[in-house]
Amino acid sequence: MTTLTKKRPWDRGARERLLTGASRLFARKGYAAATVREIVQEAGVSKPVLYYYFKNKEGLYLDLMREALARFDALLEESRQHQGSVRERLILLAERVFGLFMEQIEVARLAYSIYFGPSQGAPFFDFDALHLKFRQVLMTLVEEGIGNQEIKKKNVLDITIALLGVINVAMELRLGHPELHLGKKELRRVLHLLFEGLAREKETIRGKKG
Amino acid sequence: MTTLTKKRPWDRGARERLLTGASRLFARKGYAAATVREIVQEAGVSKPVLYYYFKNKEGLYLDLMREALARFDALLEESRQHQGSVRERLILLAERVFGLFMEQIEVARLAYSIYFGPSQGAPFFDFDALHLKFRQVLMTLVEEGIGNQEIKKKNVLDITIALLGVINVAMELRLGHPELHLGKKELRRVLHLLFEGLAREKETIRGKKG
Repeated sequence: MTTLTKKRPWDRGARERLLTGASRLFARKGYAAATVREIVQEAGVSKPVLYYYFKNKEGLYLDLMREALARFDALLEESRQHQGSVRERLILLAERVFGLFMEQIEVARLAYSIYFGPSQGAPFFDFDALHLKFRQVLMTLVEEGIGNQEIKKKNVLDITIALLGVINVAMELRLGHPELHLGKKELRRVLHLLFEGLAREKETIRGKKG
Repeated sequence: MTTLTKKRPWDRGARERLLTGASRLFARKGYAAATVREIVQEAGVSKPVLYYYFKNKEGLYLDLMREALARFDALLEESRQHQGSVRERLILLAERVFGLFMEQIEVARLAYSIYFGPSQGAPFFDFDALHLKFRQVLMTLVEEGIGNQEIKKKNVLDITIALLGVINVAMELRLGHPELHLGKKELRRVLHLLFEGLAREKETIRGKKG
């Protein structure tokens, strides 16, 4: 207990191991079923270490989500510096988001289960803010693309939904169907397909708007 | 108990009310947290009625999923009879799937939470079979479209993933962002967008394959 009151970290890797161990356990058993005892066992530390860094399981969960969100935010912020055509920047952003998702696939699995499922007693975390921020960045890029005539003059939200759909399905297929080995390369291919269109003949609504 | 041993249904709506009530409760509280007592209360019947029709909560859950799956199967089967271009048939199928999803949005929410989350003690249900069947029907249509030169000669799985992405995101935005009021009309528009392509100028990889 003296170490606790001094607030001295036991070793620098302990906090990281707790986050990783917890995300693994949460993804496997669900948030509610994973106990503090199991989390500290998985991380190879004692309970006071968890209490020191996170106060409790709720605190650990929130830090897990906040850190993933912070990395996502940084990635969105970075994307403003990207050079190239709007298409290139959209595809690069999608690849980066997919890459972050892959690095944090356990956290992503947990986020999906809490977002779509019952909260399992997990404290509130604003997943929608994350979605809205991403959507906004995509919409801004789409508007820029329409402005510089790279993208057709169609409903901005429709275009954004199509982009979100492709990025999203790549992530969900990764969660549910790893046998497809869907990676960045495939995601990029499908996004190019979306830009080029599936239709072989451009027989329809050609002159209407585009 | 005499009614039980005679296996006489109390009233014809009771089974339906139990299914509806349970799906509502499962969607709200999660599968694990919803008790038999709450389900029968929600349905306005007594416990023996639930036991008679479903044996237990697991049985009710499985019937709920099996009936949704049967309706989905029927819809896929029906789609073989559709007339028109491949594009029209793909869009019609997507609209029907979205329509079924909307009719059963509580069941869909439950399915999402179990699929992505911990099972919450729910008995195994093969959601992947459903996904694979849908994917197969889409792929067959895409192949037909490539064969009759409606669709570009690209990777069939890539095209199918793009279609799945658009259908999927429409459903998920419906679950998470009802404020967008995404409906069949919007879904159809976004699918047409996918066929036409986002790019205004067809400057890239034009002659390569398509």
